[in-house]
Amino acid sequence: MKLTKEQIQEIKEQQLQQNITKRVTVPDLEKILYEVIPVLDHGFIRVIDYMGDDTSIVQAARVSYGKGTKKVSTDAGLIKYLMRHWHSTPFEMCEIKYHVKLPIFIARQWIRHRTANVNEYSARYSILDKEFYLPKPEHLAAQSQNNRQGRGQIIEGEKAKKVLDLLKGDAEQTYQNYETMLNEKYDGSTIDKNSTGLARELARMNLTLNTYTQWYWKTDLLNLMNFLRLRADTHAQYEIRAYADEMLNTVKKWVPITHEAFLDYRIGGTEISSKGKIVLQKIINKQDVNLENSGLSKREWNELMQAMNLEDKKI
Amino acid sequence: MKLTKEQIQEIKEQQLQQNITKRVTVPDLEKILYEVIPVLDHGFIRVIDYMGDDTSIVQAARVSYGKGTKKVSTDAGLIKYLMRHWHSTPFEMCEIKYHVKLPIFIARQWIRHRTANVNEYSARYSILDKEFYLPKPEHLAAQSQNNRQGRGQIIEGEKAKKVLDLLKGDAEQTYQNYETMLNEKYDGSTIDKNSTGLARELARMNLTLNTYTQWYWKTDLLNLMNFLRLRADTHAQYEIRAYADEMLNTVKKWVPITHEAFLDYRIGGTEISSKGKIVLQKIINKQDVNLENSGLSKREWNELMQAMNLEDKKI
Amino acid sequence: MKLTKEQIQEIKEQQLQQNITKRVTVPDLEKILYEVIPVLDHGFIRVIDYMGDDTSIVQAARVSYGKGTKKVSTDAGLIKYLMRHWHSTPFEMCEIKYHVKLPIFIARQWIRHRTANVNEYSARYSILDKEFYLPKPEHLAAQSQNNRQGRGQIIEGEKAKKVLDLLKGDAEQTYQNYETMLNEKYDGSTIDKNSTGLARELARMNLTLNTYTQWYWKTDLLNLMNFLRLRADTHAQYEIRAYADEMLNTVKKWVPITHEAFLDYRIGGTEISSKGKIVLQKIINKQDVNLENSGLSKREWNELMQAMNLEDKKI
Amino acid sequence: MKLTKEQIQEIKEQQLQQNITKRVTVPDLEKILYEVIPVLDHGFIRVIDYMGDDTSIVQAARVSYGKGTKKVSTDAGLIKYLMRHWHSTPFEMCEIKYHVKLPIFIARQWIRHRTANVNEYSARYSILDKEFYLPKPEHLAAQSQNNRQGRGQIIEGEKAKKVLDLLKGDAEQTYQNYETMLNEKYDGSTIDKNSTGLARELARMNLTLNTYTQWYWKTDLLNLMNFLRLRADTHAQYEIRAYADEMLNTVKKWVPITHEAFLDYRIGGTEISSKGKIVLQKIINKQDVNLENSGLSKREWNELMQAMNLEDKKI
Repeated sequence: MKLTKEQIQEIKEQQLQQNITKRVTVPDLEKILYEVIPVLDHGFIRVIDYMGDDTSIVQAARVSYGKGTKKVSTDAGLIKYLMRHWHSTPFEMCEIKYHVKLPIFIARQWIRHRTANVNEYSARYSILDKEFYLPKPEHLAAQSQNNRQGRGQIIEGEKAKKVLDLLKGDAEQTYQNYETMLNEKYDGSTIDKNSTGLARELARMNLTLNTYTQWYWKTDLLNLMNFLRLRADTHAQYEIRAYADEMLNTVKKWVPITHEAFLDYRIGGTEISSKGKIVLQKIINKQDVNLENSGLSKREWNELMQAMNLEDKKI
Repeated sequence: MKLTKEQIQEIKEQQLQQNITKRVTVPDLEKILYEVIPVLDHGFIRVIDYMGDDTSIVQAARVSYGKGTKKVSTDAGLIKYLMRHWHSTPFEMCEIKYHVKLPIFIARQWIRHRTANVNEYSARYSILDKEFYLPKPEHLAAQSQNNRQGRGQIIEGEKAKKVLDLLKGDAEQTYQNYETMLNEKYDGSTIDKNSTGLARELARMNLTLNTYTQWYWKTDLLNLMNFLRLRADTHAQYEIRAYADEMLNTVKKWVPITHEAFLDYRIGGTEISSKGKIVLQKIINKQDVNLENSGLSKREWNELMQAMNLEDKKI
Repeated sequence: MKLTKEQIQEIKEQQLQQNITKRVTVPDLEKILYEVIPVLDHGFIRVIDYMGDDTSIVQAARVSYGKGTKKVSTDAGLIKYLMRHWHSTPFEMCEIKYHVKLPIFIARQWIRHRTANVNEYSARYSILDKEFYLPKPEHLAAQSQNNRQGRGQIIEGEKAKKVLDLLKGDAEQTYQNYETMLNEKYDGSTIDKNSTGLARELARMNLTLNTYTQWYWKTDLLNLMNFLRLRADTHAQYEIRAYADEMLNTVKKWVPITHEAFLDYRIGGTEISSKGKIVLQKIINKQDVNLENSGLSKREWNELMQAMNLEDKKI
Repeated sequence: MKLTKEQIQEIKEQQLQQNITKRVTVPDLEKILYEVIPVLDHGFIRVIDYMGDDTSIVQAARVSYGKGTKKVSTDAGLIKYLMRHWHSTPFEMCEIKYHVKLPIFIARQWIRHRTANVNEYSARYSILDKEFYLPKPEHLAAQSQNNRQGRGQIIEGEKAKKVLDLLKGDAEQTYQNYETMLNEKYDGSTIDKNSTGLARELARMNLTLNTYTQWYWKTDLLNLMNFLRLRADTHAQYEIRAYADEMLNTVKKWVPITHEAFLDYRIGGTEISSKGKIVLQKIINKQDVNLENSGLSKREWNELMQAMNLEDKKI
């Protein structure tokens, strides 16, 4: 993430704005507005704009003429109630906009969340930055043996070095050939003035999936929480979780009451199936229950014991 | 639209806010923020919040680090280009929130626009206001003879009076019986202290469709324009058009460049079919063309002549 | 729900179709295709069309060239896994279309589920049927005392009779005046040949909210389950639950494996908050825990005890 | 596009199905169901399932108990009317599902159409096929000089050969290193039995954007037409247009009446702005009008002249 002088200047200019507004404002979020928050080796998130705060949720739930209720404690009680009972529409009344720089293979996961507005940097129109994601050694892991969709043991030493060399070498080479085909360098300079370059919309196909792209991404608070619930989860791929974790921090600054309820009921909560409930009731009642007579699969049983922190318990 | 003292006070308090923000602000829209803009006899729209301005569209289209481009003329050129070529996503980067009071039968048309966030006043939870829409005499019209979905001649005199008497009488009577069933008056006072009322979620079914409801409605600029394109159109029912017209005014204050492009390319524009294009070319080339040899239906022919202002022309 | 001879004939004709198709078919659902399934006093649901079956979910999850997997047990295992881990997109690969007749005040709740396709009978264009919902005596209930959004005790005897008389009287009177204003009877006959009627788009505002409307409603299996999860719930208003219950039956015929997983993980499942999990762990470990030291509100505590069937338990 | 024997067999089995259904069927579409329709060098589309036909649009628009109207000509008239007046919801009542194999850089354009259901082949879970898109020589073009987002002159001879060599070489090398990192060949065989491979979710980042992926993609007819209107357009990138053109053929087989209206009013139609209308009226009335006094930009003027086939006309 190397910003040009011009980009740094543009960010600074926006941060110096001191506009007067009758809209609700969130001082804690204003403090970091436009700021570059680094993620991974060259990526970032920046909060560009927002609409509403915790009181806006209450205001909409009550369809009131004024702002929230009189007391913060009443607002908090209502927000918790709404979260607990899966009331969704009041949380849609807050909106946030991010500028994000991220590797293409992560952008492809991210875009699957459809209820959002997106404007991506166009590689048909412009040249992509010469930046590609290379994992830190501690994030290089072998394919998991028991989860076909996850990572297992950390890869270290010579083997790690070899992987990183391959990733780096291929990214650099394909980028260089991208420039050759375009007849243009990453900084916009022409390579051979007597020649013409391949159309950008074609040349880009030579880039590897760890090349960075960027976009403006705007969504409402409900859909942001849906995104974070999945992507800040331990089952999410590390690289997207790194973004989700930073975004969760911005949610805390923006709507602290909602953030707390979200951690309690969603991030930290667990869905227990009807069969799982019977198992727990039997455990509480000291009745005989085990994997075999529970009606649960082995995997479900393990997930339940893990969720309830009963793994080591002699049942 | 009779606001209570408390409601007037709540609105005033919000309007007195003078918050500092680094976000873009729109002074012309700030001036009318929270204000009650009357529509029909008891309805209104109020702009409650907004995100972004014309420069936000440019910023997102360019995925830039700063604000729009340097020059307003460049911004305007880009916005026109985007509108003309149906680029949609940059317009989604602006968001607006309204508080609307409207008759239920109009709310039912309105809600068909799905890409919006809505919180409606709950008649399961609260008592609806004692207000119902009665058309002004000049809006009372007979069923159209040639358009099964429209109005024809104005109804006047005795006949109009009779219609209004029926509407008024039935709305008042059903509302009174609503109170009777609830055992509660519109102002919250109990009717018979020794009795209990019918559940609100049931009693409401006795109300007529011209009873007013209200909601918070939030959408992005693209979807707002889609709404306005259909609802500010002459084919829209007058009662929803009255709302759309006032909303169009707020768009003008909010994003004046986009508003101008919207009027030119959408509201004032026309879609010509491939057959219609051939007809126009023939007219220009003074070739023989008429309804019979045009391949158009009578209705299509008339619509084309009307759109191009050629109705009285001898072709 | 009085069908005309013509309508009965039209339904029969569609049921007699014996088309050959290479698409997957579901014999159990075919049996009831187009059939009128009565709901409330004049309403119904009819399954009009469907796409896919349980194997389609597996096929899409695997992006396979063929149909599901070889064995039903493998398919079932995968479907359960997807449901348990909130994988959503494979369930979107099945689609269903209903024709529904329902009271307007229920239609207004229903339409809040936005991810669906809807075509409603147009009262701008046509006359609505002369049918209105009147609750059965056992569904007449007083406003709940402890839940502002629900029903309490059943209303009986004279009081119930009075409510029903009011509802019936007002619905009949407003409908009659609707006809008078339209100058047209419900059966399409003109009342006064020397007069013209009020535009339909205006006259309809005189109808009460228990008047029946109808629509075609099409959605995918995921969004149908989202609808059913909320609307087949005991907290949902009885009148919409009546529809949801019948739709749940059609899901059972259509995708029996998914239906079973849905009952286990969603309908019969419970979300436990992070604080709730600690409470349960303490109960299991025979540690001291009660409302006061739990960090839960009274309401949350009660909801947890109820969900885990621990209400009468001495803890 | 090399199908394995197993895949060919799976497709054949599905094509041999002869199920009886009461649903509407479309014989012309049934003929090509499941069939592999090649696109580009290794891609394809396959129609997997569909719901509804032309009569379903009419049925929903009328909310009728039966099927469409009695006469095909009446159905056609209504469908044209709906298309002309931008009525959208009846077209949402038909649904179609495709299996698509396509290069990743095209998948990234495609996925921007959000109102669709998608299940993509998971490169976290499985190994991607060893297939990458290499343009045919006639599709290799230089960057356009006057359109920053398009292609200009064809690149030929030595220069074309060099581009193709670079694309091929880089794709093959990065794929080989992908295998090396995975410690697994494209056919699933292990490379070094004494070693473990890098997690698939990481290794995939080394692939180039012309690598093929595949997905199940399902959408309704309205949103399919929105997709085709943009992607079958001459301004669309050739590679996605190749898919759109084949899909347009399947629409013709599926809903021929809608297809015809779509070509007439959308694909072949033109939006004329309010200023553009005045220009055309002046031309028709032989009034003096030219770029300078038209109020149009040069680009707009040219677009209008081109749309109306007036480019060579002396005005």
